[in-house]
Order: sequence, then C-alpha cells, then structure tokens
Amino acid sequence: MNGNSLVVVKVGGGEGIDLEAVCADVAAWVTKGRRFLLVHGGSHATNEAATALGHPPRFITSPSGFTSRLTDRRTLEIMEMVYCGQINKGIVERLQGAGVNAIGLCGLDGGLWRGPRKQTVRALVGENGRSRLIRDNLTGKVEAVNISLLHSLLDNGYLPVLTAPALSYRGEAINVDGDRAAAATAVALAATHLLILSNVPGLLRHFPDETSLIPAVAAHELETVGQRYAQGRMHIKLLAAREALAGGVGQVTLGDARSRQPLTRTLAGQGTVIQGERV
Amino acid sequence: MNGNSLVVVKVGGGEGIDLEAVCADVAAWVTKGRRFLLVHGGSHATNEAATALGHPPRFITSPSGFTSRLTDRRTLEIMEMVYCGQINKGIVERLQGAGVNAIGLCGLDGGLWRGPRKQTVRALVGENGRSRLIRDNLTGKVEAVNISLLHSLLDNGYLPVLTAPALSYRGEAINVDGDRAAAATAVALAATHLLILSNVPGLLRHFPDETSLIPAVAAHELETVGQRYAQGRMHIKLLAAREALAGGVGQVTLGDARSRQPLTRTLAGQGTVIQGERV
Repeated sequence: MNGNSLVVVKVGGGEGIDLEAVCADVAAWVTKGRRFLLVHGGSHATNEAATALGHPPRFITSPSGFTSRLTDRRTLEIMEMVYCGQINKGIVERLQGAGVNAIGLCGLDGGLWRGPRKQTVRALVGENGRSRLIRDNLTGKVEAVNISLLHSLLDNGYLPVLTAPALSYRGEAINVDGDRAAAATAVALAATHLLILSNVPGLLRHFPDETSLIPAVAAHELETVGQRYAQGRMHIKLLAAREALAGGVGQVTLGDARSRQPLTRTLAGQGTVIQGERV
Repeated sequence: MNGNSLVVVKVGGGEGIDLEAVCADVAAWVTKGRRFLLVHGGSHATNEAATALGHPPRFITSPSGFTSRLTDRRTLEIMEMVYCGQINKGIVERLQGAGVNAIGLCGLDGGLWRGPRKQTVRALVGENGRSRLIRDNLTGKVEAVNISLLHSLLDNGYLPVLTAPALSYRGEAINVDGDRAAAATAVALAATHLLILSNVPGLLRHFPDETSLIPAVAAHELETVGQRYAQGRMHIKLLAAREALAGGVGQVTLGDARSRQPLTRTLAGQGTVIQGERV
C-alpha cells in the first residue's frame, strides 16, 4: 500500500463503540502520512435520542429477514440531529483537536451521496408476522458519489467524515445503510482497502461467541460463508464487502471498534480479512 | 452589484422564522445567477430540544447587559444536534430539492471558523443580581475564516450553509454569535452585502412596535442610534453590522425572515438599511 492509497473506514454506531479510541488512532496514522476517509453510523445514539424525544424507534423486518429502522419524517429529523450533529461534529472536533483537518458532511451536502428512494417497502410489522406495504419510509440506497467534491477535499489535505442521510434523485433526504454507502464510496474513489469497524470482532462462526472469529474469507466464498454464519446486521456488512470487492476494492476487513487502537489492529489483520480475487 | 458579487445572508434562529420561505427565495435568486453564502442560527429550536432532553436552557447576563446562552458541554452537544443536524440539514435538503447545490458545514469543519475561547465569563446569574465568574462556558468568537475552503466551494458552484459552533485555537468546539460570525465571513470573503434576517422587521424606534421601523441608518450614526433604540439581541446585530462595515462590506440590511420572499424584500431595501461610508 503506497503513501497515496486511500483507506475508507466505516465506524458503526452500535453500543460500546469507542469513538475516542478510533479518532486517536486515525490521528496517529494520519501523522504517519496515511490517507483516510471516514464513514460513521449512529444507530444506538439515535435510539436513545428518539426515546428521549418521545418518538421511540421502530424496526421493520423484510420478508427475506433483514431488519431496518422504520424512517418516517420525524425519525429522519432525529437521525439528522444525531448522525449529522452529535456524532459527526463530535468526531470532527476530536480529530481537529488532534491536529487532523477533518470536515464533516452528510450525503445531502453537495449531493455527495445520491440514489433512488424505495417507494414502498414490504415488511413484517409487529409481532403477528403479517406483512404490509409501508409508504412513508424514507429509505433508499447510494448509487452515485460526488467524487469531484471528495477528490478536491482529499487533495487539499482534508479528511472527509461522512454520514447518512443521502439525497434521493427527487431531492429528498433518505436513510441509507452506512456499510453499503461506505462500500459505494470506497469503489467510487478506488480505495485500496475498506475497514468496517463495529461492536463485534468480525464474522463469528457461532454468534455471539467472540472466540469463534473467522479470521479470513476468500471473496468467492463470501456468499456461502455468510449464509451459513452471519446473524442480523452481519448480513449487510457482508453484502457491503461483496459490493466493495466487486467494484475493485482490494481488501475488506471487518474489525472491532470497542478496543484501543482499533484501526491499527484491523490494519494489522485482526478481524475477518476478506481478500479480493484480483490481488 | 455585478453577477460575481457575493451576498452573505444570516438567517436567525428565533421563533417565527420561515425557513421554507427563505430557502424558496434563495433558490429563486440563485437561478437568476446571484451568488450567496448562508449563515444560520437555531436558538429557539435548541431551547425546545434542550427542554425535551431534560437539560433546559440557561442564560447569563454580562455586567454590561448582554444576554447569552450558558454553554456547558451538554448544551454544546444539544446545540450541535439542532444547529448542525436538524436545521443545517433541513436547509440543505430544501435547497437541494430546489436544485441548489448547497453544502452544510459548521465552523469546526475544515477549521472554517477559528478564534479564541473566553476562558472565564463574568456574568449575572439568576434573579439576585450578583455576578460570578463562570469557567465551564464554551464560548468565544470568530477571528479567522478558512477562505480557501469557501472560495473553492463557491468557485465550484456550491452554496455554503454555515453554522456554529466554531473551533477554538486549542481545538475545542465553542459557541459563537451567528450574526458576528456572518459579519466576519462577509468581511473575509469581501462580500458586497450582508443581510441579517430575524424575527423583527429591523431596528425599531419603539420596540416592540413594528410600525416604528427605522428604515435607514448611516454607518457613523450606528453607535448612537443603537444606544438609544436597540433592545436585547438587536445590540449584537448592530455590533455585527459595525464590524462588517468596518471590514469593507458595502451595505448591511436588517430584514424580516417571517414573511414570504424575505430575501427579495430585504434586497429591495425593506428593513433597516445601513450604508457603509465608502459607497
């Protein structure tokens, strides 16, 4: 990996993630000349804020078993408060305090992340297992990344810190999955490496037994291994990894963001290393 | 005013301000080729969120009579949620939806607004009129603006949407006055015009009688007129106007952000027009 290669780091928003440690570690690597772009989540803090603000979180499960946040307009606004305000600016302040010229943006800013909004979502709601069509769900996915803006920032020494929401093609704010948005960004910027840090050590053979970590998976085994072992959110992380590798990113590593020096550990290969076929 | 001249618009965060109308009007002017930079506040929504989150707002009054928000760490975080999340991204979404390539940043991002933190503040607290030194107040002022970042964005067709907090020289987030930050930004970018829109029609001779609007003030009369007529927050607006004019901005207009087409009206001279001496 040469001095100009770019590493995209996704830091999850789950409980137990140590943003202080992530930022300190990023700053240490930046002073050594590494180039990074950060993408972060904020789900746990959003749940807390939404509950405190009297609009508790609701989740829906798709017929294929994926769980996601039901994002009505008020939830989207609370998400923006937490993702774009509290967490994004908290990260930017920590990095600036450590001498890193971070700049925080969400996918709306400069049309950074654009894509289609899902017009309707078929989902299982509540406990009775019946599915219904949901129309007020402001979600979608990232298809286009404003790389000219990101290149301009990176070339001028800024470290972009990105987060949801994205901008739909019709100009609405939409909630998007952070792991897949990070993968789309890594692909668009031809990053050499995507790190997906969360509150698990990586892909586990026997979830939640953390000693059952699978240390390496070849790209062509990813789908099979995922179907066998992945639980919950890990399915999306593996999908993001597949999308990144298919788009030319050399390596994806799933690592732990709860420890000290989480970046250093993950760059050294701790976690689940998923090597692209082309390397 | 030629096609390349830049107008800095400060939109306040007081009760009754119609951000929808401001954004629609900005978009209409942008399609006519006008260049803008927006700065916004968020005080009323911050009061509401802080109360809902169980950390109600507190205000302090300086011995010279200025009232400001007591900004402890938790208040700063709530401010970031509201200013940088809810309001900033709400404005960016509205402008993007109207075809304007807005990009929202706070003063931390890219070290956009830097300045000293006040180490201690002497203030009157509570009803008994006694003053005490306050040490945990995260406030300061903007002395330096990252104009290379703003020029780069403006030259590439982005409309920057800026808000507090700023970054102290020691790397901490600090609350800063939005009117004065807008003035500092207008000076740094050699803007021709600064509009300060809020929930009053301008400087009033008999506050709060809105029919007593003072339509024009010469720069050299500003201090005298302000001492005679200004109430509350209007003192800071006039101070910001003085700073903008002293820094070379040609004209400052105080206008009303509660009406339809607030920008059009204020550009047409509705409000209090303060002409610089050099024009």
